[in-house]
Amino acid sequence: MYEGVVQDLIDELGRFPGVGPKSAQRIAFHLLNSDPADINRLREVLGKVAEGVTFCEVCGTVAEQQRCRICRDERRDATLVCVVEEPKDVLAVERTGEFKGRYHVLGGALDPLSGIGPDQLRMRELLARIGTDEITEVILATDPNTEGEATATYLVRMLRDFPGLTVTRLASGLPMGGDLEFADELTLGRALSGRRAL
Amino acid sequence: MYEGVVQDLIDELGRFPGVGPKSAQRIAFHLLNSDPADINRLREVLGKVAEGVTFCEVCGTVAEQQRCRICRDERRDATLVCVVEEPKDVLAVERTGEFKGRYHVLGGALDPLSGIGPDQLRMRELLARIGTDEITEVILATDPNTEGEATATYLVRMLRDFPGLTVTRLASGLPMGGDLEFADELTLGRALSGRRAL
Repeated sequence: MYEGVVQDLIDELGRFPGVGPKSAQRIAFHLLNSDPADINRLREVLGKVAEGVTFCEVCGTVAEQQRCRICRDERRDATLVCVVEEPKDVLAVERTGEFKGRYHVLGGALDPLSGIGPDQLRMRELLARIGTDEITEVILATDPNTEGEATATYLVRMLRDFPGLTVTRLASGLPMGGDLEFADELTLGRALSGRRAL
Repeated sequence: MYEGVVQDLIDELGRFPGVGPKSAQRIAFHLLNSDPADINRLREVLGKVAEGVTFCEVCGTVAEQQRCRICRDERRDATLVCVVEEPKDVLAVERTGEFKGRYHVLGGALDPLSGIGPDQLRMRELLARIGTDEITEVILATDPNTEGEATATYLVRMLRDFPGLTVTRLASGLPMGGDLEFADELTLGRALSGRRAL
Protein backbone atom coordinates (compact mmCIF):
# COMPACT_ATOMS: atom_id res chain seq x y z
CA MET A 1 0.00 0.00 0.00
CA TYR A 2 2.84 2.40 0.78
CA GLU A 3 5.56 3.10 -1.72
CA GLY A 4 9.06 1.65 -1.76
CA VAL A 5 11.12 1.04 1.34
CA VAL A 6 8.36 1.94 3.81
CA GLN A 7 6.19 -0.92 2.58
CA ASP A 8 9.21 -3.27 2.57
CA LEU A 9 9.81 -2.37 6.21
CA ILE A 10 6.14 -2.92 7.13
CA ASP A 11 6.25 -6.31 5.37
CA GLU A 12 9.38 -7.38 7.24
CA LEU A 13 8.04 -6.26 10.63
CA GLY A 14 4.72 -7.97 9.91
CA ARG A 15 6.55 -11.32 9.88
CA PHE A 16 7.36 -10.99 13.60
CA PRO A 17 5.20 -13.16 15.86
CA GLY A 18 2.36 -11.20 17.45
CA VAL A 19 2.86 -8.18 15.17
CA GLY A 20 -0.14 -7.56 12.92
CA PRO A 21 -0.38 -5.13 9.97
CA LYS A 22 -1.43 -2.19 12.20
CA SER A 23 1.42 -2.72 14.68
CA ALA A 24 3.90 -3.20 11.84
CA GLN A 25 2.79 0.16 10.40
CA ARG A 26 3.11 1.82 13.80
CA ILE A 27 6.61 0.42 14.37
CA ALA A 28 7.65 1.35 10.81
CA PHE A 29 6.64 5.01 11.27
CA HIS A 30 8.32 5.00 14.67
CA LEU A 31 11.53 3.87 12.94
CA LEU A 32 11.09 6.44 10.14
CA ASN A 33 11.09 9.14 12.80
CA SER A 34 13.98 7.59 14.75
CA ASP A 35 17.53 8.81 14.94
CA PRO A 36 19.58 6.94 12.27
CA ALA A 37 22.03 6.05 15.06
CA ASP A 38 19.29 4.08 16.84
CA ILE A 39 18.39 2.23 13.65
CA ASN A 40 22.03 1.40 13.00
CA ARG A 41 22.43 0.05 16.54
CA LEU A 42 19.52 -2.29 15.85
CA ARG A 43 21.10 -3.28 12.52
CA GLU A 44 24.38 -4.07 14.25
CA VAL A 45 22.68 -6.32 16.81
CA LEU A 46 20.76 -8.07 14.01
CA GLY A 47 24.04 -8.57 12.19
CA LYS A 48 25.50 -10.35 15.22
CA VAL A 49 22.38 -12.50 15.50
CA ALA A 50 22.60 -13.40 11.79
CA GLU A 51 26.23 -14.44 12.30
CA GLY A 52 25.01 -16.83 14.95
CA VAL A 53 24.53 -16.69 18.69
CA THR A 54 26.80 -18.65 21.03
CA PHE A 55 25.22 -21.39 23.10
CA CYS A 56 26.77 -22.69 26.31
CA GLU A 57 28.73 -25.86 25.47
CA VAL A 58 27.58 -27.46 28.72
CA CYS A 59 23.91 -26.61 29.23
CA GLY A 60 22.94 -25.25 25.80
CA THR A 61 21.42 -21.92 26.85
CA VAL A 62 22.33 -18.67 25.08
CA ALA A 63 25.71 -17.49 26.31
CA GLU A 64 28.27 -14.81 25.63
CA GLN A 65 31.24 -17.10 26.08
CA GLN A 66 31.75 -20.83 25.57
CA ARG A 67 30.18 -21.45 28.96
CA CYS A 68 27.22 -19.49 30.32
CA ARG A 69 27.29 -17.53 33.56
CA ILE A 70 25.48 -20.25 35.50
CA CYS A 71 27.75 -23.09 34.34
CA ARG A 72 30.80 -20.95 35.21
CA ASP A 73 29.45 -20.09 38.67
CA GLU A 74 31.24 -22.35 41.19
CA ARG A 75 28.67 -21.57 43.88
CA ARG A 76 25.89 -23.33 41.94
CA ASP A 77 25.10 -26.87 43.06
CA ALA A 78 26.61 -29.14 40.39
CA THR A 79 24.79 -32.23 41.71
CA LEU A 80 21.39 -30.82 40.72
CA VAL A 81 20.33 -30.35 37.09
CA CYS A 82 17.06 -28.83 35.93
CA VAL A 83 16.08 -29.97 32.40
CA VAL A 84 14.06 -27.38 30.45
CA GLU A 85 12.90 -26.99 26.86
CA GLU A 86 14.11 -23.49 25.95
CA PRO A 87 16.52 -20.79 27.15
CA LYS A 88 13.54 -18.70 28.25
CA ASP A 89 12.56 -21.45 30.66
CA VAL A 90 15.96 -21.07 32.36
CA LEU A 91 15.03 -17.45 32.96
CA ALA A 92 11.61 -18.42 34.33
CA VAL A 93 13.15 -20.81 36.88
CA GLU A 94 15.88 -18.28 37.78
CA ARG A 95 13.21 -15.67 38.53
CA THR A 96 11.79 -17.86 41.31
CA GLY A 97 15.12 -17.49 43.17
CA GLU A 98 14.45 -21.01 44.55
CA PHE A 99 16.87 -23.00 42.43
CA LYS A 100 20.60 -23.16 43.12
CA GLY A 101 21.55 -25.99 40.75
CA ARG A 102 22.42 -25.97 37.07
CA TYR A 103 20.42 -26.38 33.86
CA HIS A 104 20.18 -28.44 30.73
CA VAL A 105 18.35 -26.94 27.75
CA LEU A 106 16.89 -29.55 25.37
CA GLY A 107 16.10 -27.08 22.61
CA GLY A 108 12.45 -28.14 22.40
CA ALA A 109 10.20 -31.07 23.23
CA LEU A 110 9.47 -34.38 21.51
CA ASP A 111 6.95 -33.82 18.73
CA PRO A 112 7.04 -36.67 16.17
CA LEU A 113 4.42 -35.00 13.94
CA SER A 114 6.80 -32.06 13.44
CA GLY A 115 9.74 -34.41 12.99
CA ILE A 116 11.29 -33.68 16.39
CA GLY A 117 12.60 -36.88 17.87
CA PRO A 118 15.25 -37.54 20.56
CA ASP A 119 18.06 -36.89 18.07
CA GLN A 120 16.81 -33.35 17.40
CA LEU A 121 17.01 -32.53 21.10
CA ARG A 122 20.09 -32.30 23.35
CA MET A 123 19.43 -35.67 25.03
CA ARG A 124 22.75 -37.27 24.12
CA GLU A 125 24.51 -34.30 25.77
CA LEU A 126 22.41 -34.82 28.91
CA LEU A 127 23.43 -38.48 29.08
CA ALA A 128 27.08 -37.49 28.64
CA ARG A 129 26.81 -34.98 31.51
CA ILE A 130 25.22 -37.53 33.82
CA GLY A 131 27.93 -40.02 32.89
CA THR A 132 30.83 -37.72 33.78
CA ASP A 133 29.58 -35.06 36.24
CA GLU A 134 28.66 -35.61 39.87
CA ILE A 135 24.91 -35.22 39.19
CA THR A 136 22.62 -36.87 41.78
CA GLU A 137 19.23 -35.36 40.86
CA VAL A 138 17.64 -34.44 37.54
CA ILE A 139 14.53 -32.25 37.76
CA LEU A 140 12.35 -32.56 34.66
CA ALA A 141 10.92 -29.08 34.05
CA THR A 142 9.49 -29.49 30.55
CA ASP A 143 6.16 -27.79 29.87
CA PRO A 144 3.02 -29.40 31.36
CA ASN A 145 1.50 -30.03 27.91
CA THR A 146 1.35 -33.07 25.61
CA GLU A 147 4.84 -32.64 24.13
CA GLY A 148 6.44 -31.69 27.46
CA GLU A 149 4.85 -34.65 29.26
CA ALA A 150 5.95 -37.03 26.49
CA THR A 151 9.49 -35.69 26.74
CA ALA A 152 9.50 -36.11 30.53
CA THR A 153 8.22 -39.69 30.21
CA TYR A 154 10.91 -40.48 27.65
CA LEU A 155 13.63 -38.99 29.86
CA VAL A 156 12.45 -40.91 32.93
CA ARG A 157 12.75 -44.16 30.97
CA MET A 158 16.18 -43.15 29.68
CA LEU A 159 17.54 -42.13 33.09
CA ARG A 160 16.04 -44.61 35.54
CA ASP A 161 18.86 -47.14 35.14
CA PHE A 162 21.59 -44.74 36.28
CA PRO A 163 22.69 -45.88 39.76
CA GLY A 164 22.32 -43.26 42.49
CA LEU A 165 20.39 -40.84 40.29
CA THR A 166 17.03 -39.40 41.38
CA VAL A 167 14.70 -38.15 38.64
CA THR A 168 11.95 -35.76 39.70
CA ARG A 169 9.23 -33.79 37.90
CA LEU A 170 7.85 -30.32 38.71
CA ALA A 171 4.60 -30.54 40.68
CA SER A 172 1.35 -30.06 38.77
CA GLY A 173 -1.62 -28.51 40.54
CA LEU A 174 -3.61 -25.36 41.05
CA PRO A 175 -1.77 -22.14 40.15
CA MET A 176 -1.27 -19.81 43.12
CA GLY A 177 -3.78 -16.97 43.23
CA GLY A 178 -6.13 -19.06 41.10
CA ASP A 179 -9.71 -20.03 41.77
CA LEU A 180 -10.68 -23.67 42.33
CA GLU A 181 -14.01 -23.12 40.58
CA PHE A 182 -12.29 -22.07 37.35
CA ALA A 183 -9.58 -24.74 37.31
CA ASP A 184 -9.82 -27.14 34.35
CA GLU A 185 -10.54 -30.82 35.09
CA LEU A 186 -7.03 -31.99 34.22
CA THR A 187 -5.33 -29.47 36.53
CA LEU A 188 -7.74 -30.14 39.40
CA GLY A 189 -7.27 -33.89 38.87
CA ARG A 190 -3.49 -33.47 39.11
CA ALA A 191 -3.88 -31.30 42.20
CA LEU A 192 -5.98 -34.03 43.84
CA SER A 193 -3.68 -36.93 42.99
CA GLY A 194 -0.65 -34.86 44.04
CA ARG A 195 -2.16 -33.77 47.41
CA ARG A 196 0.26 -33.44 50.31
CA ALA A 197 -0.12 -34.31 54.01
CA LEU A 198 0.11 -31.20 56.21
CA MET B 1 18.69 -11.04 32.08
CA TYR B 2 20.00 -12.94 29.06
CA GLU B 3 23.65 -12.84 28.12
CA GLY B 4 25.25 -10.81 25.38
CA VAL B 5 23.68 -10.15 22.03
CA VAL B 6 20.34 -11.80 22.85
CA GLN B 7 19.67 -9.29 25.62
CA ASP B 8 20.84 -6.44 23.36
CA LEU B 9 18.32 -7.57 20.77
CA ILE B 10 15.51 -7.81 23.35
CA ASP B 11 16.38 -4.30 24.58
CA GLU B 12 16.30 -2.86 21.06
CA LEU B 13 13.00 -4.57 20.18
CA GLY B 14 11.51 -3.42 23.50
CA ARG B 15 11.90 0.19 22.34
CA PHE B 16 9.31 -0.37 19.58
CA PRO B 17 5.89 1.12 20.33
CA GLY B 18 3.44 -1.48 21.59
CA VAL B 19 6.15 -4.11 22.16
CA GLY B 20 6.52 -5.07 25.82
CA PRO B 21 9.28 -7.18 27.40
CA LYS B 22 7.45 -10.47 26.75
CA SER B 23 6.78 -9.66 23.08
CA ALA B 24 10.37 -8.46 22.65
CA GLN B 25 11.60 -11.79 24.00
CA ARG B 26 9.28 -13.70 21.69
CA ILE B 27 10.39 -11.73 18.63
CA ALA B 28 14.06 -12.10 19.64
CA PHE B 29 13.82 -15.90 19.85
CA HIS B 30 11.91 -15.92 16.59
CA LEU B 31 14.83 -14.04 15.01
CA LEU B 32 17.40 -16.35 16.65
CA ASN B 33 15.72 -19.28 14.91
CA SER B 34 15.33 -17.42 11.59
CA ASP B 35 17.28 -17.96 8.44
CA PRO B 36 20.23 -15.47 8.39
CA ALA B 37 19.04 -14.43 4.92
CA ASP B 38 15.74 -13.20 6.40
CA ILE B 39 17.57 -11.22 9.08
CA ASN B 40 19.88 -9.68 6.51
CA ARG B 41 16.92 -8.64 4.36
CA LEU B 42 15.50 -6.82 7.40
CA ARG B 43 18.90 -5.22 8.02
CA GLU B 44 19.06 -4.01 4.43
CA VAL B 45 15.63 -2.39 4.65
CA LEU B 46 16.59 -0.76 7.96
CA GLY B 47 19.75 0.53 6.31
CA LYS B 48 17.71 2.24 3.62
CA VAL B 49 15.42 3.73 6.26
CA ALA B 50 18.43 5.02 8.22
CA GLU B 51 19.75 6.67 5.05
CA GLY B 52 16.46 8.53 4.84
CA VAL B 53 13.15 7.93 3.18
CA THR B 54 12.04 10.08 0.25
CA PHE B 55 8.97 12.23 0.71
CA CYS B 56 6.89 13.51 -2.20
CA GLU B 57 8.01 17.05 -3.01
CA VAL B 58 4.40 18.09 -3.66
CA CYS B 59 2.21 16.47 -1.01
CA GLY B 60 4.79 15.28 1.53
CA THR B 61 3.75 11.64 1.82
CA VAL B 62 6.30 8.82 1.69
CA ALA B 63 7.31 8.22 -1.92
CA GLU B 64 9.71 6.16 -3.95
CA GLN B 65 10.49 8.96 -6.40
CA GLN B 66 10.47 12.75 -6.12
CA ARG B 67 6.72 12.71 -6.64
CA CYS B 68 4.40 10.10 -5.16
CA ARG B 69 2.13 7.86 -7.22
CA ILE B 70 -0.96 9.99 -6.50
CA CYS B 71 0.67 13.32 -7.41
CA ARG B 72 1.97 11.75 -10.65
CA ASP B 73 -1.44 10.32 -11.56
CA GLU B 74 -3.00 12.64 -14.15
CA ARG B 75 -6.44 11.08 -13.60
CA ARG B 76 -6.66 12.46 -10.04
CA ASP B 77 -8.66 15.66 -9.63
CA ALA B 78 -6.07 18.42 -9.13
CA THR B 79 -8.71 20.94 -8.02
CA LEU B 80 -9.42 18.99 -4.81
CA VAL B 81 -6.89 18.67 -1.98
CA CYS B 82 -7.37 16.65 1.20
CA VAL B 83 -5.19 17.90 4.07
CA VAL B 84 -4.15 15.17 6.53
CA GLU B 85 -1.72 14.91 9.43
CA GLU B 86 0.33 11.83 8.53
CA PRO B 87 1.11 9.53 5.56
CA LYS B 88 -0.97 6.81 7.22
CA ASP B 89 -4.01 9.09 6.98
CA VAL B 90 -3.53 9.21 3.20
CA LEU B 91 -3.85 5.43 3.22
CA ALA B 92 -6.98 5.59 5.39
CA VAL B 93 -8.72 7.98 2.97
CA GLU B 94 -7.53 5.95 -0.05
CA ARG B 95 -9.06 2.82 1.46
CA THR B 96 -12.54 4.40 1.32
CA GLY B 97 -12.24 4.52 -2.49
CA GLU B 98 -14.39 7.67 -2.31
CA PHE B 99 -11.75 10.31 -2.92
CA LYS B 100 -10.40 11.15 -6.36
CA GLY B 101 -8.46 14.31 -5.52
CA ARG B 102 -4.93 14.81 -4.19
CA TYR B 103 -3.42 15.11 -0.73
CA HIS B 104 -1.35 17.39 1.43
CA VAL B 105 0.43 15.85 4.42
CA LEU B 106 1.14 18.32 7.23
CA GLY B 107 3.48 16.02 9.13
CA GLY B 108 1.51 16.35 12.38
CA ALA B 109 -0.92 18.70 14.12
CA LEU B 110 -0.51 21.95 16.03
CA ASP B 111 0.58 21.18 19.58
CA PRO B 112 2.20 24.22 21.23
CA LEU B 113 2.99 22.26 24.44
CA SER B 114 5.21 19.91 22.43
CA GLY B 115 6.69 22.84 20.51
CA ILE B 116 4.85 22.11 17.28
CA GLY B 117 3.70 25.38 15.73
CA PRO B 118 2.74 26.26 12.14
CA ASP B 119 6.43 26.43 11.13
CA GLN B 120 6.99 22.78 12.13
CA LEU B 121 4.17 21.68 9.82
CA ARG B 122 3.99 21.84 6.02
CA MET B 123 1.61 24.83 6.03
CA ARG B 124 3.80 27.15 3.97
CA GLU B 125 3.93 24.44 1.28
CA LEU B 126 0.12 24.23 1.33
CA LEU B 127 -0.16 27.99 0.81
CA ALA B 128 2.30 27.80 -2.08
CA ARG B 129 0.27 25.03 -3.72
CA ILE B 130 -2.97 26.97 -3.40
CA GLY B 131 -1.23 30.04 -4.82
CA THR B 132 0.00 28.29 -7.97
CA ASP B 133 -2.20 25.21 -8.62
CA GLU B 134 -5.79 25.20 -9.82
CA ILE B 135 -7.14 24.14 -6.38
CA THR B 136 -10.80 25.04 -5.72
CA GLU B 137 -11.54 23.00 -2.58
CA VAL B 138 -9.46 22.10 0.46
CA ILE B 139 -10.88 19.31 2.65
CA LEU B 140 -9.52 19.47 6.20
CA ALA B 141 -9.12 15.85 7.32
CA THR B 142 -7.04 16.33 10.47
CA ASP B 143 -7.93 14.05 13.41
CA PRO B 144 -11.12 14.88 15.35
CA ASN B 145 -9.20 15.51 18.61
CA THR B 146 -7.93 18.67 20.34
CA GLU B 147 -4.79 19.08 18.23
CA GLY B 148 -6.50 18.14 14.97
CA GLU B 149 -9.40 20.54 15.60
CA ALA B 150 -6.99 23.35 16.50
CA THR B 151 -5.06 22.72 13.29
CA ALA B 152 -8.27 22.75 11.24
CA THR B 153 -9.36 26.04 12.88
CA TYR B 154 -5.95 27.58 12.16
CA LEU B 155 -6.08 26.46 8.52
CA VAL B 156 -9.62 27.81 8.02
CA ARG B 157 -8.46 31.22 9.22
CA MET B 158 -5.37 31.06 7.00
CA LEU B 159 -7.28 30.00 3.88
CA ARG B 160 -10.57 31.90 4.05
CA ASP B 161 -9.24 34.97 2.23
CA PHE B 162 -8.27 33.04 -0.92
CA PRO B 163 -10.78 34.04 -3.65
CA GLY B 164 -12.76 31.16 -5.13
CA LEU B 165 -11.49 28.59 -2.59
CA THR B 166 -13.90 26.43 -0.60
CA VAL B 167 -12.61 25.03 2.70
CA THR B 168 -14.50 22.03 4.11
CA ARG B 169 -14.09 19.75 7.11
CA LEU B 170 -14.83 16.01 7.41
CA ALA B 171 -18.22 15.40 9.02
CA SER B 172 -18.28 14.48 12.70
CA GLY B 173 -21.01 12.20 13.98
CA LEU B 174 -21.90 8.68 14.97
CA PRO B 175 -19.56 5.99 13.62
CA MET B 176 -21.31 3.54 11.29
CA GLY B 177 -22.23 0.26 12.95
CA GLY B 178 -22.09 2.02 16.31
CA ASP B 179 -24.74 2.18 18.98
CA LEU B 180 -26.42 5.49 19.88
CA GLU B 181 -26.63 4.47 23.53
CA PHE B 182 -22.86 4.11 23.82
CA ALA B 183 -21.86 7.26 21.90
CA ASP B 184 -20.02 9.84 24.01
CA GLU B 185 -21.71 13.21 24.61
CA LEU B 186 -19.35 15.12 22.33
CA THR B 187 -19.87 12.78 19.37
CA LEU B 188 -23.64 12.67 19.85
CA GLY B 189 -23.70 16.48 20.17
CA ARG B 190 -21.79 16.79 16.87
CA ALA B 191 -24.13 14.30 15.23
CA LEU B 192 -27.12 16.38 16.36
CA SER B 193 -25.76 19.74 15.25
CA GLY B 194 -24.63 18.25 11.94
CA ARG B 195 -27.97 16.55 11.19
CA ARG B 196 -29.06 16.42 7.56
CA ALA B 197 -32.45 16.82 5.92
CA LEU B 198 -33.57 13.64 4.14
